[in-house]
Amino acid sequence: MELSHKDLLGIEQLTAQEISLILDTAVSMKEVSAREIKKVPTLRGKTIISMFYEPSTRTRTSFEIAGKRLSADVINISASSSSVVKGETLEDTGRNLQAMNPDLLIVRHACAGAPKLLADALPTPVINAGDGSHEHPTQALLDAFTIRERLETLAGRSVLIVGDILHSRVARSNILLLNKMGAAVRVCGPLTMMPRAVEQLGVEYVPCLTDAVRDADVIMMLRIQKERQQGARFPNEREYSRFFGLNRAVLRHARGDVLIMHPGPVNRGVEISPDVMSLPYSIILDQVTNGVAVRMALMYLLTGK
Amino acid sequence: MELSHKDLLGIEQLTAQEISLILDTAVSMKEVSAREIKKVPTLRGKTIISMFYEPSTRTRTSFEIAGKRLSADVINISASSSSVVKGETLEDTGRNLQAMNPDLLIVRHACAGAPKLLADALPTPVINAGDGSHEHPTQALLDAFTIRERLETLAGRSVLIVGDILHSRVARSNILLLNKMGAAVRVCGPLTMMPRAVEQLGVEYVPCLTDAVRDADVIMMLRIQKERQQGARFPNEREYSRFFGLNRAVLRHARGDVLIMHPGPVNRGVEISPDVMSLPYSIILDQVTNGVAVRMALMYLLTGK
Amino acid sequence: MELSHKDLLGIEQLTAQEISLILDTAVSMKEVSAREIKKVPTLRGKTIISMFYEPSTRTRTSFEIAGKRLSADVINISASSSSVVKGETLEDTGRNLQAMNPDLLIVRHACAGAPKLLADALPTPVINAGDGSHEHPTQALLDAFTIRERLETLAGRSVLIVGDILHSRVARSNILLLNKMGAAVRVCGPLTMMPRAVEQLGVEYVPCLTDAVRDADVIMMLRIQKERQQGARFPNEREYSRFFGLNRAVLRHARGDVLIMHPGPVNRGVEISPDVMSLPYSIILDQVTNGVAVRMALMYLLTGK
Repeated sequence: MELSHKDLLGIEQLTAQEISLILDTAVSMKEVSAREIKKVPTLRGKTIISMFYEPSTRTRTSFEIAGKRLSADVINISASSSSVVKGETLEDTGRNLQAMNPDLLIVRHACAGAPKLLADALPTPVINAGDGSHEHPTQALLDAFTIRERLETLAGRSVLIVGDILHSRVARSNILLLNKMGAAVRVCGPLTMMPRAVEQLGVEYVPCLTDAVRDADVIMMLRIQKERQQGARFPNEREYSRFFGLNRAVLRHARGDVLIMHPGPVNRGVEISPDVMSLPYSIILDQVTNGVAVRMALMYLLTGK
Repeated sequence: MELSHKDLLGIEQLTAQEISLILDTAVSMKEVSAREIKKVPTLRGKTIISMFYEPSTRTRTSFEIAGKRLSADVINISASSSSVVKGETLEDTGRNLQAMNPDLLIVRHACAGAPKLLADALPTPVINAGDGSHEHPTQALLDAFTIRERLETLAGRSVLIVGDILHSRVARSNILLLNKMGAAVRVCGPLTMMPRAVEQLGVEYVPCLTDAVRDADVIMMLRIQKERQQGARFPNEREYSRFFGLNRAVLRHARGDVLIMHPGPVNRGVEISPDVMSLPYSIILDQVTNGVAVRMALMYLLTGK
Repeated sequence: MELSHKDLLGIEQLTAQEISLILDTAVSMKEVSAREIKKVPTLRGKTIISMFYEPSTRTRTSFEIAGKRLSADVINISASSSSVVKGETLEDTGRNLQAMNPDLLIVRHACAGAPKLLADALPTPVINAGDGSHEHPTQALLDAFTIRERLETLAGRSVLIVGDILHSRVARSNILLLNKMGAAVRVCGPLTMMPRAVEQLGVEYVPCLTDAVRDADVIMMLRIQKERQQGARFPNEREYSRFFGLNRAVLRHARGDVLIMHPGPVNRGVEISPDVMSLPYSIILDQVTNGVAVRMALMYLLTGK
């Protein structure tokens, strides 16, 4: 079986079978990073260009490590050093990079749709590494991998997502994926951070966190993106934390073995209290580890064949 | 045959034979980038340091890809993260890098002569990747490669260069190269952008674009470098475009198969209209593809033997 | 024999035997950089993450070259592009990077203790590449290597360090190392740049430079860190240079074969006059060459076994 699209632009395009293919492939990729010699020759002689137009450590690093462990050549381009300065359109930048015969482009951009623009213009496969408030499909895939690793299956699981559902590309991609895989999704957060008809996304909205956590198999906390909050959607961080932060008091209403996730970077003490981060069922760092495996799988599936 | 200088500082130093050697070597290098596995072991264990003191995507990326496809280790240094901050002279920075035993330095700098300064001080070969308004020899070589690929020979061809001849290092290197290879060069552009005695460069100046394009085999449009225009050399972009922009109306005065080139990044609708960019004889993206091949050839010729 | 700590945080932790082990290992590593093919497969499949939270060319480049010559994959993270922007704690950044299974972290940070914080939190080895005014152990090790290369042994040698002893991590690490290896250390510089009870560091303070150089085997000039001088510790550079700059007049009081060292980048004409920099016994560039060898040795000793 193969992926039916040349690109990974969003979870929206993927079928449940394709999602399973990616997650199954990631299982064997994860094994590579556990070896003494963490490198396989799969993508030797392939050129991967990583274009990050928003600052990022973990995602960029995760892709770079994934590419290098597959023996690809990885070229980094960041916004500041790029032709952006010189006023070239993204599409022209893409066409120029295309002309250097890359095998894969990784694109993060503040504008929703930027990766699609490139993907439509170019024959080279494009992976969306996060575009505005649209999608962050590799995050949703690594989250799914992490849940499946613990709970074996996504179907029938109950997943709660807490935070700024309106602006979060992580939430959007996760909701799409979990729905496709048969999980039930609940969301919680301030009303000002909910899309208008949130139920139409196929989720249940529960305004109060202590109600929302009840019987959930997984709690995903979203990051409060201080750098994106223009205009106050909540009074202040302390207030947010009091009503929507995850702490031991809230967890008393949840299952004892509820899995706790966060896409990072965490604002400690805002979305999640430090003691909760180090609980045995907090699998935040598993997500990071699995990110490398999922990205290796995608690189292999999109270019390696 | 070998290159007689240890460095590539400008077209000025090269003989016609050396130019042909570089272009011939690039033919076989181009084939590497077309393979399934785009990598040869030629420069394995060689260290290439790429020093870009001006922002650049395409040129830096082109050199990095060229080096990696030859299996060299490529180290990137950019101005912002460098000792420039600490007030070290360029020559001392060079001597320090030299002490780490690199095999090749790639240097872009806003000051004309900076690569020569390093080349004179250091035993390591230096490639000038563009220095101020002086030279950009790898651009001229890739342009020559691209013309030769289409027209078989440079000798006897008529090439028109349009734009800021006074400040353009691309124009300077191209004029030098085309003269050495026996092509006839015509230039066009506002009088404020012409060197004083422009004919002494071995070119013909034709003030009007519709006259200038007549019978040309190749039209090279130069980039309007908004970031370098201090003091107005032309009223505004619209005005410039009206008199010196390439569009279909102008092309009616040219040969039907005239080749259209641009070193990029293009200011769409200023130097060149979007519909002209996508004409079959527009070979702007071929230039980019050939840039990797020409740079691989130079890396091989300067270090690989 | 092996190093007893998983990290290299400072010279303070090392025994004389461990220092000798590192220097002995560096001898064979130096030979690699002198070969035609400067690469050995020792660390193939290992992931080294280099985190520089302060600008640096030479040290970052030296580590990157060292890692690549050992065939490791080297991932660069700089402060500006990192999650620092997003307000994540250093420890959380470290834990996240740890989750991607690196084999070694290289850390430079403006805060003393930052590398130790990471080292304590993470199982991965950490090399301190300079932390605030605390330590810069790889600099001291490469200085020791360079002295040993010329004088065969450190024991019994007399080393003079000139400059801002109070704030210099280079001075601190060198004093610790030289004391452990049995060398005698003298320091010189303005009183405002001396720690309060400087003799308790195991050094002799000589206020006047012409007295201080007498009979020294080695003179190490420290860099005046203009970027760190908040509040004037000396009237101005010219004044500093007049009393504490090394020039031919001062050298007339020293041994004819005294070795002259500087950790770079040099402020020419401030700490050291240009003609002195090019004397035969000036071994400033040897230090840079040996930096690559010493860092290769440390990478091998901390991860390669």
